[in-house]
Amino acid sequence: MEFEAFTASALADYLGGIAEVRDRLGDPADLEIVEVGDGNLNFVYFVTNTKARERSVVVKQAPPFLRLVGKNWPLSCQRMDHEVAALRRFGALCPQHVPQVYHADGKRFLMVMQHLSSHRILRHGLMDGVTYPLMAEHLSTYLAQTLFFGSDLYLAPDIKKQAMSGAVNAELCKITEDLVFTFPFEDHPSNVYSPALPKSALERLRTNDALRMAAADMKWAFMNHAETLLHGDLHTGSIMVNERETYVIDPEFAFYGPMGFDIGALIANLLLAYFSRDYHGRLNGGDPAAYQEWLLDQTVRIWNGFSGKFLALWRDHESRSGRPFIGGSADSRAVDAYRAHFMRRLLADTLGFAGCKMIRRIVGMAKVAEITRIPDAELRAQIEVRALRCAEALLVQRTALTDIEHVVLLARDVEHDAIAQR
Amino acid sequence: MEFEAFTASALADYLGGIAEVRDRLGDPADLEIVEVGDGNLNFVYFVTNTKARERSVVVKQAPPFLRLVGKNWPLSCQRMDHEVAALRRFGALCPQHVPQVYHADGKRFLMVMQHLSSHRILRHGLMDGVTYPLMAEHLSTYLAQTLFFGSDLYLAPDIKKQAMSGAVNAELCKITEDLVFTFPFEDHPSNVYSPALPKSALERLRTNDALRMAAADMKWAFMNHAETLLHGDLHTGSIMVNERETYVIDPEFAFYGPMGFDIGALIANLLLAYFSRDYHGRLNGGDPAAYQEWLLDQTVRIWNGFSGKFLALWRDHESRSGRPFIGGSADSRAVDAYRAHFMRRLLADTLGFAGCKMIRRIVGMAKVAEITRIPDAELRAQIEVRALRCAEALLVQRTALTDIEHVVLLARDVEHDAIAQR
Repeated sequence: MEFEAFTASALADYLGGIAEVRDRLGDPADLEIVEVGDGNLNFVYFVTNTKARERSVVVKQAPPFLRLVGKNWPLSCQRMDHEVAALRRFGALCPQHVPQVYHADGKRFLMVMQHLSSHRILRHGLMDGVTYPLMAEHLSTYLAQTLFFGSDLYLAPDIKKQAMSGAVNAELCKITEDLVFTFPFEDHPSNVYSPALPKSALERLRTNDALRMAAADMKWAFMNHAETLLHGDLHTGSIMVNERETYVIDPEFAFYGPMGFDIGALIANLLLAYFSRDYHGRLNGGDPAAYQEWLLDQTVRIWNGFSGKFLALWRDHESRSGRPFIGGSADSRAVDAYRAHFMRRLLADTLGFAGCKMIRRIVGMAKVAEITRIPDAELRAQIEVRALRCAEALLVQRTALTDIEHVVLLARDVEHDAIAQR
Repeated sequence: MEFEAFTASALADYLGGIAEVRDRLGDPADLEIVEVGDGNLNFVYFVTNTKARERSVVVKQAPPFLRLVGKNWPLSCQRMDHEVAALRRFGALCPQHVPQVYHADGKRFLMVMQHLSSHRILRHGLMDGVTYPLMAEHLSTYLAQTLFFGSDLYLAPDIKKQAMSGAVNAELCKITEDLVFTFPFEDHPSNVYSPALPKSALERLRTNDALRMAAADMKWAFMNHAETLLHGDLHTGSIMVNERETYVIDPEFAFYGPMGFDIGALIANLLLAYFSRDYHGRLNGGDPAAYQEWLLDQTVRIWNGFSGKFLALWRDHESRSGRPFIGGSADSRAVDAYRAHFMRRLLADTLGFAGCKMIRRIVGMAKVAEITRIPDAELRAQIEVRALRCAEALLVQRTALTDIEHVVLLARDVEHDAIAQR
């Protein structure tokens, strides 16, 4: 059966037929329905009762193809099952930062969920230079809760293995394996390059052995290290914020993978915001420096906040259970030494993944608005070169960068060197 | 229903009722049935036609408990399904080194398989100082074929993920997680220590932070790094040999895990044979040195043979497919650099796992005969201390030991230092 997107009236009828949703929305005749998908993967509708606009939901439906490309890139609709399962799991772990699912329909590949009507996409807020005072606090909590409770540090090993095998998401993982870890490092037809991006910058991605090995290590880890249930696509377009609240949406890429992948995706996007700020921050004669420092500060707060909260959950759990992961007594020196060692390894992973995520946004198919919306080709290419330089350093030096403050120094160095060379 | 082991006549009747097995064995009235299980896990029978002794099979049946401990350590019988699936898979990949399965009965938790009647358990051969001229060649082939073809280096990612999730083996993995990676590093009631083993050697396992962290890293890798379908318990008691042939048996612990675990198990057992040779080689006034060197040489040949064959399979596959794992063209310098890097990482993993496997055989519940059969408590403890010292160095220095020749030097140093101190 050919997939057909809902017409507004068909969707209103459908929603009217689900008691729970109808109770929430009111009379189907009063509904306003607007399609707002970003066009990459899914159809997304805001459904609002025009007589009581606080009564609203989001409907998300998965077509059997990659919407960005069209019917020539088929995708199974089962990704909606992954997304629903992940939203429910993350919602149970961290309800304050995950939208509620009101209704899921496996046959129509759609779900009805909480409408975050007073929130905006974090990426857009960052492009406008908005500061969110609670964002780092919220996101570090989200990361600590979701990454810890899905892992062998918390779950009984049989439960974890069952969860892992139930969360296999081969089709969407393949997109990441190709678009993040492979195509950017070769001359692939799906790559999209800025016209002014120097050939040498592209050549470097294909010929720097240390960089290639590091990226391949990250690909291997992505494909093999089934550490916890990940969001799988945690960029700043998957986060909705306002002054008081932060929500993480769109976990259709969820699977059991390496913890650093989610944290790295987030840090990559903060760093892309940082480098592109040199353009957006100068609009209307502004100075980008203060907001750039705010972005770096958020990066530090997110990692340090995450690390502290993750360690607290870990310590708490082991002192309650009396059974530390490494054996022995929960208060032994080795137990703490291992935790510190684990976090250093996790930071290295995080930085490696951040590097890959930055590179794919510069040379791969899927871009980020803070860069594509720089109209001056030369300026855009300069910013892209800085992002690539930072990404390379993150990848190659990931085990030497033993704390997040070093990462901030590195980013600042890349930015200021580049500016000095103008 | 209470599990009851077959009586000889009931088993003969059962086998007579399976056409394929009956054709192989002949008249059930002529069968001789002997139970030969080592008593750890399963019941194992040799079934032979007394009128034509070349007509024989092995029957293996899984009771619903750990046979070594008894009914107080329940185990599900599904381990026989894992073993059958793994034997068939490994048999397809490497038929010359894996016994054939003639019949599997999922309801009775048993299988009927090739009887390796002219082969003996490698561990016993090594205790007797027998050299096997083709063993290293065979085992390196087995390792290369089984580890490569189950991994993302060969399989399409969706097929690999499906295979991985189908091979979850939580119950038997738990035994390894506990007995290999946890209990030996704490004062656990299941541990068994030689009476003369110095307290300081035990203390060291519990208090040396570097060792504890290394062992915990290996535990994490064992639980999370789903790289390929492993045998899961590849010690020298799982290998049957003669002058001409080598077979790998008993893969009931098979699961998707880190490649280095199988290679490390094998190397650990060769090193235990090496250290214990200082006793067995002196029986009847002998000199252990020559056979010890043969054992070290086998260790080198197995790793180097494995590494060469694995790399050849990898190169071959990628030059045929034209799609290297890291992207780009199959003959680029980065592709080869990554392969070398991958093998260094794999050697480090291998040595880490080897260290854990050696330690568990000294202080854990399940022992190895070459050590337990040393009657002199003092001498036995001396050999155990050397094995522990070597294991610790393998774990802690695993990334610094960049080739197998260094491992051999290390083992020899430990052995000779120890002897010099007598």
